[in-house]
Amino acid sequence: MHFTSDRRVDDLIERDFLLGDVPGILWTPASASAAAPTPLILLGHPGGLRPMYPRLLARARHSAEQGFATATIELPGSGDRTPSAAAERARADLRTAIRAGERPTEQVVEALILPLVDEAVPEWQALLDELVSLPEIDGPVGYSGGVIAVGIRLALVEPRVVAAGLFAGSFVPRSMFDEARRVSIPLHVLLQWDDEGNDRQLALDLFDAFGSKEKSLHANMGGHRGVPQHAGEDAGSFFARHLR
Amino acid sequence: MHFTSDRRVDDLIERDFLLGDVPGILWTPASASAAAPTPLILLGHPGGLRPMYPRLLARARHSAEQGFATATIELPGSGDRTPSAAAERARADLRTAIRAGERPTEQVVEALILPLVDEAVPEWQALLDELVSLPEIDGPVGYSGGVIAVGIRLALVEPRVVAAGLFAGSFVPRSMFDEARRVSIPLHVLLQWDDEGNDRQLALDLFDAFGSKEKSLHANMGGHRGVPQHAGEDAGSFFARHLR
Repeated sequence: MHFTSDRRVDDLIERDFLLGDVPGILWTPASASAAAPTPLILLGHPGGLRPMYPRLLARARHSAEQGFATATIELPGSGDRTPSAAAERARADLRTAIRAGERPTEQVVEALILPLVDEAVPEWQALLDELVSLPEIDGPVGYSGGVIAVGIRLALVEPRVVAAGLFAGSFVPRSMFDEARRVSIPLHVLLQWDDEGNDRQLALDLFDAFGSKEKSLHANMGGHRGVPQHAGEDAGSFFARHLR
Repeated sequence: MHFTSDRRVDDLIERDFLLGDVPGILWTPASASAAAPTPLILLGHPGGLRPMYPRLLARARHSAEQGFATATIELPGSGDRTPSAAAERARADLRTAIRAGERPTEQVVEALILPLVDEAVPEWQALLDELVSLPEIDGPVGYSGGVIAVGIRLALVEPRVVAAGLFAGSFVPRSMFDEARRVSIPLHVLLQWDDEGNDRQLALDLFDAFGSKEKSLHANMGGHRGVPQHAGEDAGSFFARHLR
């Protein structure tokens, strides 16, 4: 990993970096130091760092107020990374189904999600290897956001991730429910009740499937992008309980 | 209404009262006065002020920390009030069904809940008439807890109640769903995912039915009495947003 830029944004230090050829951003509270290292939250997103930047920055700011560093990387096939023809086809099929008011087939969901999870999760783990070696960052680590299937796999396979705030705003293949059943870390699951790009019953079934003894579902009104501000505050309290 | 006792419990003033022959308790922050009146939260409960007292006091304390007065009254047929033979029969039928792992019939749920709602709600409204005339109490008013059917009716018919934190821990007759659809105040609905005395799907359907534009469902693991502490904190934030 090498840093390519470094700037101050209010009380945050924002650093762009490249992890191999994968771009990413690290935000640390200006107060963080080797003498006072901070826990870390990985910020998940649907892909596309540039269009997502304003919302990622808002989440980074909110986390920094609670004393947490945050970091994110571009997803495989998104932003400036080479898109996968198979994933693009699956995404088009998914959109067609949703537009027609139909549930996408398992085949389409699997074709879109499984390769993404398989490729993205080792990258997030490689990112973790780098970040926890920084003097101003200390464990434990949380994962926050979507793609929820990436969060599920990370929660299952990455022992440094001790709590996850998952945004149930994207499809999860039923074949991943077995993994969900084996997740045991505390979970805070956010659901937009009328998410136009998701299936409510799938999200409720998934919440039911998670093996974690401590799991909360917070459902709010509105579409995919309508997450109310107070939902972010409740998620913040969740991380404060588990990362401090 | 007349007060029958008055004592200080830490930073709370606790006063027992009789409203006609209905016993109740009022808690006000010791700091409340005519010059600094506080909003009020009505504390719903399943009936039985004496066995419920420790949990009611804990909720009163938590609310007082946020600057809210709280009050509650005994439910019709509970505690020292004359039980209704029909309600006792319906309660026994309900328990029999639940113990057998069956959903109680609509007839049983209606026999238990509808007369209770019809009788309790005017009593809570009479309580409100008295409380808002006290110099240390000021609107707006919230309702918090169960019996959820009582909360639904109050949310619908009592304009002084501007926000409700409803505990989805008891059955609601399907015939009350029309009332739920007409509720429009902000709602914060708490659901215990594995509540042994409730029906999860009924609670999810009810949440979906509520007409309120702002409504949140917070589901947590565990049985009826296992509501985690952080759920109370999130409910507190809800009331802080709507009663201040």
